[in-house]
Amino acid sequence: MLTYTLEKGHGKSLYAELYEHIREDIRAGRLAAGTRLPSKRTLAANLGVSTVTVENAYAQLIAEGYAESKERSGVFVCAIGAALPPVEASAPVYSELRRDKPLLDLSGGGGEDVPFPFSVWAKTMRAVISEQGKDILKPVDFRGAAELREAIAGHLYRVRGLRVSPEQIVVGAGNEYLYGLLVQLLGRERRYAVEDPGYPKITGIYKANDVAVKHIPLDGEGMSVQALQNSGAEIAHISPAHHFPTGIVMPIRRRSELLAWAYAQPGRYIIEDDYDSELRHTGKPVPPLFSLDTQERVLYLSTFSQTIAPSLRIAYVCLPPKLLMCLRERLSFYTCAVPTFEQYTLARFIDSGDYERHLNRLRKRYRDKRALILSQIEESPLHGRCGVVEENAGTHFLLHLQTSKSDAALKRAAAERGLSVRFLSDYQTRREDTGSMIFNYACLDTARVPEALRILAALTEK
Amino acid sequence: MLTYTLEKGHGKSLYAELYEHIREDIRAGRLAAGTRLPSKRTLAANLGVSTVTVENAYAQLIAEGYAESKERSGVFVCAIGAALPPVEASAPVYSELRRDKPLLDLSGGGGEDVPFPFSVWAKTMRAVISEQGKDILKPVDFRGAAELREAIAGHLYRVRGLRVSPEQIVVGAGNEYLYGLLVQLLGRERRYAVEDPGYPKITGIYKANDVAVKHIPLDGEGMSVQALQNSGAEIAHISPAHHFPTGIVMPIRRRSELLAWAYAQPGRYIIEDDYDSELRHTGKPVPPLFSLDTQERVLYLSTFSQTIAPSLRIAYVCLPPKLLMCLRERLSFYTCAVPTFEQYTLARFIDSGDYERHLNRLRKRYRDKRALILSQIEESPLHGRCGVVEENAGTHFLLHLQTSKSDAALKRAAAERGLSVRFLSDYQTRREDTGSMIFNYACLDTARVPEALRILAALTEK
Repeated sequence: MLTYTLEKGHGKSLYAELYEHIREDIRAGRLAAGTRLPSKRTLAANLGVSTVTVENAYAQLIAEGYAESKERSGVFVCAIGAALPPVEASAPVYSELRRDKPLLDLSGGGGEDVPFPFSVWAKTMRAVISEQGKDILKPVDFRGAAELREAIAGHLYRVRGLRVSPEQIVVGAGNEYLYGLLVQLLGRERRYAVEDPGYPKITGIYKANDVAVKHIPLDGEGMSVQALQNSGAEIAHISPAHHFPTGIVMPIRRRSELLAWAYAQPGRYIIEDDYDSELRHTGKPVPPLFSLDTQERVLYLSTFSQTIAPSLRIAYVCLPPKLLMCLRERLSFYTCAVPTFEQYTLARFIDSGDYERHLNRLRKRYRDKRALILSQIEESPLHGRCGVVEENAGTHFLLHLQTSKSDAALKRAAAERGLSVRFLSDYQTRREDTGSMIFNYACLDTARVPEALRILAALTEK
Repeated sequence: MLTYTLEKGHGKSLYAELYEHIREDIRAGRLAAGTRLPSKRTLAANLGVSTVTVENAYAQLIAEGYAESKERSGVFVCAIGAALPPVEASAPVYSELRRDKPLLDLSGGGGEDVPFPFSVWAKTMRAVISEQGKDILKPVDFRGAAELREAIAGHLYRVRGLRVSPEQIVVGAGNEYLYGLLVQLLGRERRYAVEDPGYPKITGIYKANDVAVKHIPLDGEGMSVQALQNSGAEIAHISPAHHFPTGIVMPIRRRSELLAWAYAQPGRYIIEDDYDSELRHTGKPVPPLFSLDTQERVLYLSTFSQTIAPSLRIAYVCLPPKLLMCLRERLSFYTCAVPTFEQYTLARFIDSGDYERHLNRLRKRYRDKRALILSQIEESPLHGRCGVVEENAGTHFLLHLQTSKSDAALKRAAAERGLSVRFLSDYQTRREDTGSMIFNYACLDTARVPEALRILAALTEK
């Protein structure tokens, strides 16, 4: 007869304890396959528990396949195949990569928060909870909530002069998510051209999606059309409004040439990545390629990461009608990856005008910050030994240093002085020395810039 | 001299209007490349506007590459390459696929809401906004917020008896997102085995990710190990806790055989998709394969879609330590795709005990609903001409109909009577007639079931 000591008060029910004892006996082979287990009544009497306890334990064993019930003859131990080892809880060794935090990061990390009217955002969230109630948990169209797509379409028209139907807008959980979706839409077997220099993350995501990536050099106007042509790529991923890190704003001539490239062969597309066009400081933002395209070859992609918060995870892509149909036919089984609540909150934030008010303040803030930093450079010992390359846009410029040192040597020396810097060469496939430092001021504490400039001046002295 | 009629009051600034006029003249070729534009002062006087207006218009043209400024000689029209057609706003033709809504959907759509304590959820959201403030917009670890990963680990231990370190948990924007990520982690070039019958969406997502999918038939205990072996697949995607749509709960013997299959070759993995194990009605949920695995070959995947709401878009995967390292090395450049706010809200909902209280109510609700429907079947004219196949779990069972009609003919006839039904054959690659209807009662209005059963009885009469 099976005999176990069952103890109450371990947070486990008696039946669970009994089940575990028998299970371990079966797994260890102490109860062989074919063995008949005692009747519920007998075992209950033996252990001094109720028959319900035994019944529940047997039911669990049967449910998991450790035992089976044969009508009118009882419960029998099953053959469980290869012996299963006892389960041990092993704590995995997982050591975080530790990075020492620099005193000042000129390349864009850390420092100040990006200004954002959190109280207005919180008020909007609360209003959505109160007014839309249970609807915030309802499913939406695979392209995203109609409310948000309409708000984005209105915003694009007011701020970018871009006319697009809300039907053409597809909302996704960040640019990264949408890049992956676009590969599924346009084809994984194709070659994708990216800008060189450019964001390494874009290349990283394409490679993780097993896409052949061609790095196309830029000239002063953006991606070289000749090099693009020679690469055999069919999809060109570009950021014509404001290229990172060079800051190039693509002139209309090059835009026209790129469209001509796309039109020259069926199946060629341009992914227009408009990641920070809303941060143009002066004048209207440059009109997107999407609005110049007459043959449905441009996909316009943008995000709220730069202007609200990366953790919001909302980006969108505007698709030409034919590609939209394609997406609907082949990929509309996907659920929209952004929670309904965030979509409603953002829609309301845009419709109320709060988003555009925030953008205006943000642009002014960055304009002022940039002007201050440019004057700090003029007053610094670097003055006369450096040049600023910038285009009145975004949150960074290039600081070209006159130096005989290599980029790598400067980076190392700067790091020793607590300064984290990146060079144009860090974003290029060919790591040639450039002397051009990325000066990203979005989160920079300007009070510490003079000291940083003194350090740079000392490092570049002959 | 350029002369345009600029009109105020169109919601456009004067400079923008002037810029557009000149731009259109350049694009139409009326202003040829090399043409010198009038000086700002002259044009301003001619048009009766301020020089600032002209200056802004010129600046915009220069920024976009329509014109260029040459020092001390003025502003000149640039060559813009191939003529760009005028931009027209065309409304894309996008007609929604219309589906007539059936009177009663037995296959799982429409009907009642899944019960959820929305007021508790809303209270939790408000508490997170008030207490965590700006932190709800801060970035989190690529695996998700530590708070949520800890809450999930605690929940898995309490409810599933599964011991896993929060370090091993990776949060993603729904199962669909995680399937795509796992393909990137495990390899796109491999063969993936899925259950047949099974969820068509799983196959759809693997195919959209260009993965070779093998459909492996089930026997009474789940995926056939022999067929899996013969398929040459290296990754087996299974749902051992409760298979959809057959309802099979995989016995321990088959679990052990599948582990042995994985251990027999390096590079073999099991994706354990535990989509609704929390809805087991009686007894403890069956322990997952993940906790039996001693050689780091099982990935445990689960979601909050079934128990909270699909629109929440939060799922997670528990990875063995080696795969976690792999993910960190190769794919940690991805930002966690779930907004920080939803992560904090869910963490608090779990930690407070509200989630487990909800699960208990949900299980009771489904248990009662199932019992009612089973009694409705007994009292219906179908009684004696059908069989119920079910395993005390999930929100559906199979209703096997004794009929000479084909599944397709029954579906058509049912649809004519306003009844939407699906058969086991709808989830199989080989569409053999089964007579087995999926009876999904999660959202079903039970008041209408007797009528539905009368219709089915009439349709299956000889």
